Amino acid sequence: MKVVVTGAGGFIGTQLVRELCQRGTLALHPSGEVKISSIVAADLRIPEESRKGLPSWVSFVEGDLSTDEAVDSIIPQEEDFLLFHLAAIVSGDGERDFDLCIRVNLEGTVKLLDACRNSRGRARIVFASSLAVFGGEACPPVVGDETKPLPQTTYGMTKLAGELMINDYSRKDFLDGRAIRLPTIFIRPGKPNAALSSFASGLFREPLGGIDFELPVSREQGVPLLGYRKVVGAFILAMECDGEALGDDRVLTLPSRQYLVRDMISSLQGVAKEKGITLGKIIDQPDPLVIEVVEGWPIGTESKRAEALGMSADSSLEEVIEAYLDDFHEFPGRA
Amino acid sequence: MKVVVTGAGGFIGTQLVRELCQRGTLALHPSGEVKISSIVAADLRIPEESRKGLPSWVSFVEGDLSTDEAVDSIIPQEEDFLLFHLAAIVSGDGERDFDLCIRVNLEGTVKLLDACRNSRGRARIVFASSLAVFGGEACPPVVGDETKPLPQTTYGMTKLAGELMINDYSRKDFLDGRAIRLPTIFIRPGKPNAALSSFASGLFREPLGGIDFELPVSREQGVPLLGYRKVVGAFILAMECDGEALGDDRVLTLPSRQYLVRDMISSLQGVAKEKGITLGKIIDQPDPLVIEVVEGWPIGTESKRAEALGMSADSSLEEVIEAYLDDFHEFPGRA
Repeated sequence: MKVVVTGAGGFIGTQLVRELCQRGTLALHPSGEVKISSIVAADLRIPEESRKGLPSWVSFVEGDLSTDEAVDSIIPQEEDFLLFHLAAIVSGDGERDFDLCIRVNLEGTVKLLDACRNSRGRARIVFASSLAVFGGEACPPVVGDETKPLPQTTYGMTKLAGELMINDYSRKDFLDGRAIRLPTIFIRPGKPNAALSSFASGLFREPLGGIDFELPVSREQGVPLLGYRKVVGAFILAMECDGEALGDDRVLTLPSRQYLVRDMISSLQGVAKEKGITLGKIIDQPDPLVIEVVEGWPIGTESKRAEALGMSADSSLEEVIEAYLDDFHEFPGRA
Repeated sequence: MKVVVTGAGGFIGTQLVRELCQRGTLALHPSGEVKISSIVAADLRIPEESRKGLPSWVSFVEGDLSTDEAVDSIIPQEEDFLLFHLAAIVSGDGERDFDLCIRVNLEGTVKLLDACRNSRGRARIVFASSLAVFGGEACPPVVGDETKPLPQTTYGMTKLAGELMINDYSRKDFLDGRAIRLPTIFIRPGKPNAALSSFASGLFREPLGGIDFELPVSREQGVPLLGYRKVVGAFILAMECDGEALGDDRVLTLPSRQYLVRDMISSLQGVAKEKGITLGKIIDQPDPLVIEVVEGWPIGTESKRAEALGMSADSSLEEVIEAYLDDFHEFPGRA
């Protein structure tokens, strides 16, 4: 079975492609174990770190996925295929450039879904949505599949619109779609990105790298966290599961655990001490824009449907910090 | 102040234009009474019945409002204006022609909102949404502003997407938008239309016209009804109200009253008897497509926010039947 991954140059996309390569098969309902014959890893730009060490059956396509040409070049025309659609303008960039966010996240997603619908092959799709579909004054602190969404960013609005498309294209049997709502993902390696939740990774990554970190939110802020390994696992479980069994709503709110920023800091300090890592300093530097948006976000999730499919939150912060150190960290801050 | 009405060839659009002409002013918050200087009545086609008897300051524009040319021809470029956006592919047609529904209801609405945003004038907009945004197995029988929407038609999906746009364009201060969710509107004169709720008007209209009516749903089906005069009033109140005061959700679920089909029939028979009208017969002719969709719809609304703005349901079925007889009926069935 062919697999297409958009956003393959991003953090989760890169990890997802690696995991798919390692597994080599997917346990697709109802057919069971299916061999992955090839992977098309697509994004506007795919950095060298995302390419290295991958087998020859992974090909890379760089292009603007909101254009017909790029979409046509990655969607198989004749055979059944699997599509993980992660490519998107992130929340901070979306607030700065409304038109870009609409073009890529909304029009681009419609283009991609239409290409899937028009393919003679049958498409099974997992769409990356986000807790950013929730917000507003009446938003409960804990959200789930039955909570009314009310986005407070253009990013969140386009993600919710994508969910609507996934549901309607599936209802019409144009394709077999599923969407998963990602909570705040950590620990993202590399440079900070333009997501408004970027601090939740930076808070760990920068000090572990021996770099001082300016904390833009209060230490009392709650954040619904999910480690990146669990997120990659959730994408795969969402692809493998029985779409029909999801019923008339193919959107799943992923599990997360709620932590306060100060708990995140003390877990970080605990792991650093144990591993002999000298941390960069964490400096309180409140950013009104980030605070306003983040305070409107939910701080926890209720995720029974996702959990029934085997998706789960991390058992501890330490588990994710240690995974990050194993996977990415070259210990520049180690004494 | 210039007023633009899309869907002005439809039932509610026609009545809305007439009501605006009769009033001549709108009590816009916060400026107070404002004179309507002109009305642009736009639709794909505007029948003679929708044009007749209107003053010279109403102009008619026929065109496909999902095209740039038509949109540019109706949106004022230099001055502030009011837009009632009612034009849409209705639910039954939307189920038959997915692409048309997406093009007109979704892309057309985005085009219109972008034209408003790009105008040097400030736009205040009321968007016609629908209870069709609700549905699915978990849908409660009574829905309201806090209910999670889950459309089960492409029509409903595009209406919900339009609501998202109204909220986000307003949040970004590109325009001052409001949306109202219409329940089942009755009594629509003329020919049956392709809305799946068309039976709720036909049930009255055809027998009153001396014509037999084939009832496609069960007599025990509940329907959330709102008379057309109240709907027109709600459009105007939604335009007049303070958009800021709606908070972060500019979508209002209109009030309605819940009736069973058999209650609708007995009210009809009561009015007919009193007025000496010989009714056409009502013949039970269940239509599986209509039944399946209508059974998934909510049967009542909880509408506190709309009611606080002065919007209200009809006090009785008889009130609407009698208004219909006054406004439209030439009593062909009268003895």
